Amino acid sequence: MKIGMIGLGRMGGNMARRLMAGGHQIVAFDRNADAVKALADDGAEPATSLDDLRSKLDSPAIWWVMLPAGEITETTIETIAADAQAGDIVIDGGNSFYKDDIRRAKALAEKGLHYVDVGTSGGVWGRERGYCMMIGGDKETVDLLDPIFDTLAPGTGDIVKTPGRVADKVDPRAERGYIHAGPAGSGHFVKMIHNGIEYGLMQAYAEGFDILKSKNTDKIAEDQRFDLNLTDIAEVWRRGSVISSWLLDLTAIALAKDEMLEQFSGSVADSGEGQWTIDAAMEQKVPANVLTASLFARYRSRIDHTYGDKVLSAMRYGFGGHVEIPQ
Amino acid sequence: MKIGMIGLGRMGGNMARRLMAGGHQIVAFDRNADAVKALADDGAEPATSLDDLRSKLDSPAIWWVMLPAGEITETTIETIAADAQAGDIVIDGGNSFYKDDIRRAKALAEKGLHYVDVGTSGGVWGRERGYCMMIGGDKETVDLLDPIFDTLAPGTGDIVKTPGRVADKVDPRAERGYIHAGPAGSGHFVKMIHNGIEYGLMQAYAEGFDILKSKNTDKIAEDQRFDLNLTDIAEVWRRGSVISSWLLDLTAIALAKDEMLEQFSGSVADSGEGQWTIDAAMEQKVPANVLTASLFARYRSRIDHTYGDKVLSAMRYGFGGHVEIPQ
Amino acid sequence: MKIGMIGLGRMGGNMARRLMAGGHQIVAFDRNADAVKALADDGAEPATSLDDLRSKLDSPAIWWVMLPAGEITETTIETIAADAQAGDIVIDGGNSFYKDDIRRAKALAEKGLHYVDVGTSGGVWGRERGYCMMIGGDKETVDLLDPIFDTLAPGTGDIVKTPGRVADKVDPRAERGYIHAGPAGSGHFVKMIHNGIEYGLMQAYAEGFDILKSKNTDKIAEDQRFDLNLTDIAEVWRRGSVISSWLLDLTAIALAKDEMLEQFSGSVADSGEGQWTIDAAMEQKVPANVLTASLFARYRSRIDHTYGDKVLSAMRYGFGGHVEIPQ
Amino acid sequence: MKIGMIGLGRMGGNMARRLMAGGHQIVAFDRNADAVKALADDGAEPATSLDDLRSKLDSPAIWWVMLPAGEITETTIETIAADAQAGDIVIDGGNSFYKDDIRRAKALAEKGLHYVDVGTSGGVWGRERGYCMMIGGDKETVDLLDPIFDTLAPGTGDIVKTPGRVADKVDPRAERGYIHAGPAGSGHFVKMIHNGIEYGLMQAYAEGFDILKSKNTDKIAEDQRFDLNLTDIAEVWRRGSVISSWLLDLTAIALAKDEMLEQFSGSVADSGEGQWTIDAAMEQKVPANVLTASLFARYRSRIDHTYGDKVLSAMRYGFGGHVEIPQ
Repeated sequence: MKIGMIGLGRMGGNMARRLMAGGHQIVAFDRNADAVKALADDGAEPATSLDDLRSKLDSPAIWWVMLPAGEITETTIETIAADAQAGDIVIDGGNSFYKDDIRRAKALAEKGLHYVDVGTSGGVWGRERGYCMMIGGDKETVDLLDPIFDTLAPGTGDIVKTPGRVADKVDPRAERGYIHAGPAGSGHFVKMIHNGIEYGLMQAYAEGFDILKSKNTDKIAEDQRFDLNLTDIAEVWRRGSVISSWLLDLTAIALAKDEMLEQFSGSVADSGEGQWTIDAAMEQKVPANVLTASLFARYRSRIDHTYGDKVLSAMRYGFGGHVEIPQ
Repeated sequence: MKIGMIGLGRMGGNMARRLMAGGHQIVAFDRNADAVKALADDGAEPATSLDDLRSKLDSPAIWWVMLPAGEITETTIETIAADAQAGDIVIDGGNSFYKDDIRRAKALAEKGLHYVDVGTSGGVWGRERGYCMMIGGDKETVDLLDPIFDTLAPGTGDIVKTPGRVADKVDPRAERGYIHAGPAGSGHFVKMIHNGIEYGLMQAYAEGFDILKSKNTDKIAEDQRFDLNLTDIAEVWRRGSVISSWLLDLTAIALAKDEMLEQFSGSVADSGEGQWTIDAAMEQKVPANVLTASLFARYRSRIDHTYGDKVLSAMRYGFGGHVEIPQ
Repeated sequence: MKIGMIGLGRMGGNMARRLMAGGHQIVAFDRNADAVKALADDGAEPATSLDDLRSKLDSPAIWWVMLPAGEITETTIETIAADAQAGDIVIDGGNSFYKDDIRRAKALAEKGLHYVDVGTSGGVWGRERGYCMMIGGDKETVDLLDPIFDTLAPGTGDIVKTPGRVADKVDPRAERGYIHAGPAGSGHFVKMIHNGIEYGLMQAYAEGFDILKSKNTDKIAEDQRFDLNLTDIAEVWRRGSVISSWLLDLTAIALAKDEMLEQFSGSVADSGEGQWTIDAAMEQKVPANVLTASLFARYRSRIDHTYGDKVLSAMRYGFGGHVEIPQ
Repeated sequence: MKIGMIGLGRMGGNMARRLMAGGHQIVAFDRNADAVKALADDGAEPATSLDDLRSKLDSPAIWWVMLPAGEITETTIETIAADAQAGDIVIDGGNSFYKDDIRRAKALAEKGLHYVDVGTSGGVWGRERGYCMMIGGDKETVDLLDPIFDTLAPGTGDIVKTPGRVADKVDPRAERGYIHAGPAGSGHFVKMIHNGIEYGLMQAYAEGFDILKSKNTDKIAEDQRFDLNLTDIAEVWRRGSVISSWLLDLTAIALAKDEMLEQFSGSVADSGEGQWTIDAAMEQKVPANVLTASLFARYRSRIDHTYGDKVLSAMRYGFGGHVEIPQ
């Protein structure tokens, strides 16, 4: 199929290349002309503006927006909505907040446009491994786009088939690495929860390795101290243990390179999905202590001392005359 | 009564003085001869050793040990057990682990000695306000010591009487500020939970003030930003609000002195009771998320970046090529 | 002053009565005619509609809205905005979300109306003890209303003065139990954080008493088991301990009545402020594990078994063939 | 090699069978004669007592104890220590607390016996997939036992090799699924942390699926509600997503069988390792909010309403006259 790709960063560029490798045609636009040129060198048709891009697409046109969530995505979709022709399909492949999708889908529907939200996981490895996709939108549009998703997805590969899946209750596309989750917004909703879980999984490993490492220190009494090789521990857990996972694979790679992880300072960013997951938990009154603690650990990693810590010290000084201990 | 006070630090010295002010006699011992001299100047009979102290007490002797929990308390009580005479009473007024009390009480009972554990709250303010005490031991011994506890306790004062207390179900001493909680160990157990709760209360205020303060920053959009006076907020909450408390009073004092709390670095110590409370929660299978999070916040306050934070960064680099954001 | 009180429920009715007792005049309206009649019997001037209420007020009129946060407050304020005359003052004394205040204040300002948000703490005891108030709005309006706030507030009473308050840095009203926190929205913002802290304090006590109670059970080995009197423990902690507070006073009252608390099922409600506090923490990137865990404990208290619990059981069955243990 | 297997439950029996399939000889003992007979039918040499078992082994004998952690393991090892001959090797393949290992290793060393602790992961799937093993003990003994571990382990299989492992810094056995972690106790220590992490990972998925499921309910406003197929979501996340893992594979299997998981009540057991992990975190002063919250979620899953919940309700009733809402 012929797809207009708007946003040629790490994600958009790689997806365009995977699509071209799968036989699709890409019309490419980015505010950064170098990015457009680079993709044109790889076979895409360059566009100099959104208008220009539309003129190079068929009808209905497929606009795939692959930009950071927030204002830039919002204004780009508004512009597209103005340029598009009835029947066109606008895809937000970024990490938008699902309530924005619901709102946009309604607004675009009034102009005869179809809105599809695609949450993708797989990171920088996706071009090679394929992208795991969670898709929201109306059935006809999602079905129409199937060749695109099929190309982007990892396919069944050699991952073991889940026993017991009953054909009439499940979506066969799931085994190829993508699902039609429901109406507009549902794709990003599922992706949002995916990221919330991701934070939790990561923090569980982080805390475990932290306890392992702190067992090696000479602050521990000698007969209780170990000299654990964290690199080997990560490696052995990859092999037959209950906690094997792709995130553990990545940890094993990082530790093999430098067990002390000295290239990292330990200031950990968080993106919107972690926070939105907690918003959803609260809206739906679901306790989510682990997901929340994972998010807060990231906030805390970026703060030297909190003001709250000082309030604690001030109270302790107040009732016990305690002075602070040196760190 | 005549009491041998062993350990004349901030707590022991103040308690001895309150006891003398209440008409009791103190025989005083400390490894630090200056501390003994200071108390002797205030009216205590000095002792040069535990042996000497025993010789200056009546029978049964009352040994009040007021030392930091741990090895020093343990070895001192062992020495006393060797020096004591059948019928003597050994009081641990420190913050020992309640299982140590249970063990010691058994061991001392075999020698005809009575063991009493006294958990005290009130901090440096206790000399003036009186000490809130939670006492474990056998009934006869605790009753015998009542004049001591009565002097140390704050008494009923002007604290409003709790309506509905039914005479035959409650201990009248509670209204004077002390209770006989049960057998040996129970005094420190109740004090331990007291401290666990204390950590939770403190952290609740700390987080609240942290959120208030962060609302003042220019990182917040101007039309959503405030310029809150934290000193006044602490003050107003003392007056008729649901969250008024003594800890809030202390916070109000600290903020009035310096709202930025600049004398504090925010490295917050924790003592054994916080940890033991979580041990008890786990032993008894009671979920205690708040008390645990409060304890962990203190650990975290003393660490620059955890190794776990670096593990997170390493994973993020692994799957997304994310580089760390500057703090 | 003459005040139009809209909403005569537990809070509004009591506040109106305290105001009248303080010499103010109340024009009263409620959708429930019986509530209007009851207040009229106590001296208020009854109104049959918002229009009627306006006609009985002077100019500028003072409209005090005391309704549950949400739609009813929103629509009532919209109606008032239509009925009001330029210069009128509209007070939201309920628990509105502070961003709604900011929005409303802007909208009302365009019509020449002044908007004031008042967060109050004190619950059903406020009529007698006075209300702790946190006020947002423009300075002139808040100053104009001072006689009202002064009457509603608890006053300095016999609460010990905080040492060190420096006159030119603080608001003297704080010592009488109310503050002008800043522009519209800031009153409810401070009240919101107050409630967030309240949840944390309550949960800290709850967990502590839970551990105490579970120490009494015969599941504990006999030589480690106690028979703790929770009623006396709550009482003694009120007296000289670090964790004394008004919430503890209330706990002591409840335990004195029935230590087993059998009248309560343990399904605990939460209102908007707890959730909004976490929203603010996330918006401002402040870790708030204790406040969040407190909120989630309430959600959890209202659920029998979560679906998540079943997911855990399903995984355990999957990897270990574990069957569930009976509760 | 010839191995005495003591304890022929699900784990011990399967390991014995995998060992025999790998060419080793098993002398089998269990208090349950039927279990011995069943294994003898599969080729093991039956023993009627520990004495009898010893007589059928060579010197040095290899005693592999595969019993539940706690008293039964403790007394069995004491009995073996009495029956064993100098140079014999005693392996605890269960889930003992690592400090018990350290203590036992010292005690056995005084009798000339070698103690080895083996933490294993892999559950009921281990017989087929192989067991991931973390081993503590002295080097000579662990090296001597290598043929046994090599048979039990999964081997390199088709798991992708971790790039960057540097031969002289790592243990080549890790890639075959087992490591020599260090001295006695370290095997179970690493396994303990493994299980702590396992709890955290499981809870992260559980919370995520809980939020997904609660989005399907008609409590959500219609235009915000979805009808998500959790079975397909689990499936699609297995394929190219960042959160793919073996635990997710198991979840996908369970959901494919019954998305409502109705066979499970949601009462989730916990074993010692989860708790010991938190003990270690506290001993080592490492914040571990996620691992702890995961453990507490299991406690909570087994309680209808906590006493703490009732304390909350009692306070709310006290300050606000709030009655409980129906669940």
